[in-house]
Amino acid sequence: MPNILNARDIDFLMDDVFGLADILSHPLYADHDREGCAQILQTAEKLAEDLFQPFAAKADANEPWLEDGVAHVIPETETALKAYAEAGFPAAGFAQADGGMQLPYIVGQAAAGWFVAANCGFAAYPFLSAAAGNLLAAYGTDEQKSKYLTPLVEGRAFGTMCLSEPHAGSSLGDIRTRAERQQDGSFRLFGSKMWISGGDHEMGENIFHLVLAKIPGGPAGTKGISLFLVPRRLEDGSRNDVATAGLNHKMGYRGTTNCALNFGEHDGAVGWLVGDENRGLNAMFHMMNEARTGVGHGAAVMGVSGYLHALAYAKDRTQGRAVDERDPTSPMIPLIEHADIRRQLMQARAYAEGSLALSMYAASLVDRERMDDKTATQLLAILTPIIKSWPSEFALRANDIAIQIHGGYGYTRDYPVERLYRDNRLNPIHEGTKGIQGMDLLGRKVVQDGGAPLRALSGEIGTTLSAADAFPEERDQLAVLLERVGEVTLAMASAAMTDPKAYLANATIYLDMLGHVVVAWLWLRQAIAVRDHSDTDFAAGKVTTMRYFFRYELPVTGPQLDLLAELDRTCLEAEATQF
Amino acid sequence: MPNILNARDIDFLMDDVFGLADILSHPLYADHDREGCAQILQTAEKLAEDLFQPFAAKADANEPWLEDGVAHVIPETETALKAYAEAGFPAAGFAQADGGMQLPYIVGQAAAGWFVAANCGFAAYPFLSAAAGNLLAAYGTDEQKSKYLTPLVEGRAFGTMCLSEPHAGSSLGDIRTRAERQQDGSFRLFGSKMWISGGDHEMGENIFHLVLAKIPGGPAGTKGISLFLVPRRLEDGSRNDVATAGLNHKMGYRGTTNCALNFGEHDGAVGWLVGDENRGLNAMFHMMNEARTGVGHGAAVMGVSGYLHALAYAKDRTQGRAVDERDPTSPMIPLIEHADIRRQLMQARAYAEGSLALSMYAASLVDRERMDDKTATQLLAILTPIIKSWPSEFALRANDIAIQIHGGYGYTRDYPVERLYRDNRLNPIHEGTKGIQGMDLLGRKVVQDGGAPLRALSGEIGTTLSAADAFPEERDQLAVLLERVGEVTLAMASAAMTDPKAYLANATIYLDMLGHVVVAWLWLRQAIAVRDHSDTDFAAGKVTTMRYFFRYELPVTGPQLDLLAELDRTCLEAEATQF
Repeated sequence: MPNILNARDIDFLMDDVFGLADILSHPLYADHDREGCAQILQTAEKLAEDLFQPFAAKADANEPWLEDGVAHVIPETETALKAYAEAGFPAAGFAQADGGMQLPYIVGQAAAGWFVAANCGFAAYPFLSAAAGNLLAAYGTDEQKSKYLTPLVEGRAFGTMCLSEPHAGSSLGDIRTRAERQQDGSFRLFGSKMWISGGDHEMGENIFHLVLAKIPGGPAGTKGISLFLVPRRLEDGSRNDVATAGLNHKMGYRGTTNCALNFGEHDGAVGWLVGDENRGLNAMFHMMNEARTGVGHGAAVMGVSGYLHALAYAKDRTQGRAVDERDPTSPMIPLIEHADIRRQLMQARAYAEGSLALSMYAASLVDRERMDDKTATQLLAILTPIIKSWPSEFALRANDIAIQIHGGYGYTRDYPVERLYRDNRLNPIHEGTKGIQGMDLLGRKVVQDGGAPLRALSGEIGTTLSAADAFPEERDQLAVLLERVGEVTLAMASAAMTDPKAYLANATIYLDMLGHVVVAWLWLRQAIAVRDHSDTDFAAGKVTTMRYFFRYELPVTGPQLDLLAELDRTCLEAEATQF
Repeated sequence: MPNILNARDIDFLMDDVFGLADILSHPLYADHDREGCAQILQTAEKLAEDLFQPFAAKADANEPWLEDGVAHVIPETETALKAYAEAGFPAAGFAQADGGMQLPYIVGQAAAGWFVAANCGFAAYPFLSAAAGNLLAAYGTDEQKSKYLTPLVEGRAFGTMCLSEPHAGSSLGDIRTRAERQQDGSFRLFGSKMWISGGDHEMGENIFHLVLAKIPGGPAGTKGISLFLVPRRLEDGSRNDVATAGLNHKMGYRGTTNCALNFGEHDGAVGWLVGDENRGLNAMFHMMNEARTGVGHGAAVMGVSGYLHALAYAKDRTQGRAVDERDPTSPMIPLIEHADIRRQLMQARAYAEGSLALSMYAASLVDRERMDDKTATQLLAILTPIIKSWPSEFALRANDIAIQIHGGYGYTRDYPVERLYRDNRLNPIHEGTKGIQGMDLLGRKVVQDGGAPLRALSGEIGTTLSAADAFPEERDQLAVLLERVGEVTLAMASAAMTDPKAYLANATIYLDMLGHVVVAWLWLRQAIAVRDHSDTDFAAGKVTTMRYFFRYELPVTGPQLDLLAELDRTCLEAEATQF
């Protein structure tokens, strides 16, 4: 029984639900075919099982440590990173022009899913490097690309993202790190950065920090932020003026070094401007959307892994008897035979596989956007906050349920479900907290382009509804709900003109509500797509889980829409002194 | 600002909501008055702050370890336990006849709350000892009481509860530990016990294990279980045949040793029967109800502590600006000024203080039951599964929200909210998982005595509703809901005759639903009781949080009642092969 991910489900999502064949037929991906993608995914699965999962618990129990001012990690990490690089994965997502494989994004995400689910603390190193590389690919000069992007693509060097400072996380306009221009065109950076994952270690040739900083004299707030590349080691091999001030000791994700970095304790850290002056946040946000999709995907696969572990346990562990069994000498039955355990498994599955469907759909939209599909861009705009936050909350709940199904054993570190919960708990926080996502959705995405993104989403859902005759009950439930969402959103948006504070006060409730609608829709798409699947148990399970989601989970949107329709002011008007 | 508990809230609950004056006027508590209770609570608060909280993080970071087969803990634990004993707390709950203080149960729980919230891993030692002592007080012979109860009351020895075995947790009828009768009337025990908190250490004079085991030849299942006292050391000071097979490494609650114990690796562990042969589970369950109340209370106070930490952080930490502030050079505002942070604080408070109201109400019912109030017995019957499980789920969510409000800092072990979450995560598991509580509620309590417990609860809620004229909206909302609960429960109970499996399949949903109804009612009681409070901010805050709970949380019961009314079979009918 698989316990990292379910390859059958991933194939189903790619092939039967989100149209991988169509994506592969585009000239952009002319060098790839389905067979080649399958081989890549099998390699990912094998590496995840054989090399990465086996040291996940050890990495958790043996956090990175500082020695002579340098962060160290257990040696298994570097071994795994070398194998990852040798298999060519660092190049997967990059364009051929940049030395990459130009793999469809959805296939790259599927492969990444195996690594995160197996050992997220390890996976953070290459994924952050890919994110840094993407920034260089988009904004770097040719010289910067050859110096810094190539080692990243080849997996020889690593990258980081340095945004937050100790006093400023969500509020990036308030960062204080300054970059002083030098006569040779370079800059010297001074300031403290916080929460830098992969910020220090001795693996690979070098670490390239992508750092947000302000050039003195520029505009205040976010408009004065520029992006810089600051290498850990300079070209002559000497250390740049970047010091590790300390390691953060986290609840989970412990395999990844997470550092407080001091730039410029001496003469200033040598750095180079990437992209245009004062346009650093725009560059970063371009990449942030992909990072947020990645967070949602990571949360989803960790949830799936928790569910699979719980499923295996529930089939194996015996306890108690059926409700109508009176003979205490009869053998105990497997946990899965108890109705409430089955309900919990169903709930965990609905959350975890629903999250995975959402993040894989997001990946297919990234491919379609690259294929110049304008609707995909609108859909990504409205869905990104949901893709980031829904799995971060609900796939995490799947991890919580997985602990519960294990009983006392789930509360021990002998079973991976405990660690998976702690690892996944990061996801509602980083790359924009849930509160930030709600503000992004309601304050920006819902109102942008005259409401075009939400209309695009409604259109897509409508297409599914007209193909859902096999499930009339759920089709009608979703249709009624969708209409109500439109009405309530319109009423809210018109109230926003006069009272923007009340409009935004329940942004998180709106995010939760729309998230449930979207995931219900994706469950319906799965139920429709699975009907002709050769594995009838798989097909029946998908349909049952879809029904479960519509009956047990989706109705919570009713009370949420009631609150939103009233623009409830309870929280807005509570005085701080009353708490 | 308090960050362990809020003494004002505890006083309010005891005095203004749950009638401590009335309890103190009963002859049972003639030796106590309000002033004396206040002194006891102040001592508890001071010990918690000065002695227990300071080593909570250290105990978490330095788990118990085995050395020469014996479990050891950091030395601060024993120092704190001695101070706890010197202050007289081990005697608080026991009858004067047994050498105890005979303190009202509600006051004892209030004091206990300070210890759990400050350092639950420490608090487990005395609380388990009290539970063992209660069993001896109720079922022990005079000789057993003088030998074993007195050292527990005086805080010189410790007690444990040995129920689970590696293969049998929820299903106690399947335990295999056997007790062989000896000619001198003693027994020799053979078997393995699992999850024994406080099961081994070198603190105090001795450890008294209360062990469930089967006497060979007795009935099968739960009817053949007897209760035994097995001391760690025999009267001559030598070690009994009880070996620590290993320590469990848990997600939280790490200050408490949690052991796998082997009884009878050699000649058998010497033990004595407590109470009647084959009636051990009844004895244990008599105490289990108090244990479950204690679990709910522990979950509640940990939730409150998390909320208070988050509140202090939200008032102190600045980040970002108001929605309508356009000047990026204006100073950042405290987190609490953001509407979504305030919503999260309100949610955490509604859950945590709602849980505390529930567990303090439960404590007042224990007092009233001791005062021969028959209604209190009925109320405890129906409420115990809710008291155990609602705080375990929702006060835990308050801890989760507390992490979220701290952002990245909340994910580190530098702030106590991270540990509080991990500690509290035990509570939905031990002393009967949530699934077990649902079965107890719907399968036993709702149908017992012809429905008398639920009628008693409805009667109490009705009394509040007739005094709720100041809150007509909430009064009507709860009245309508209560009527629907009655209708749906009746319909379910009649369907149970023909289809008990379908009746029980959604027992957890019923538990969730009724829990929300009860907590809403207790919020309404608080809002009514707080009106004349001298602290107007406190009073306004209580009313606002009540309103929040009715508007944002209670409506979720609507969809739950819909499901229950239909006796939904989705989970029941899902085949195991479909997962």
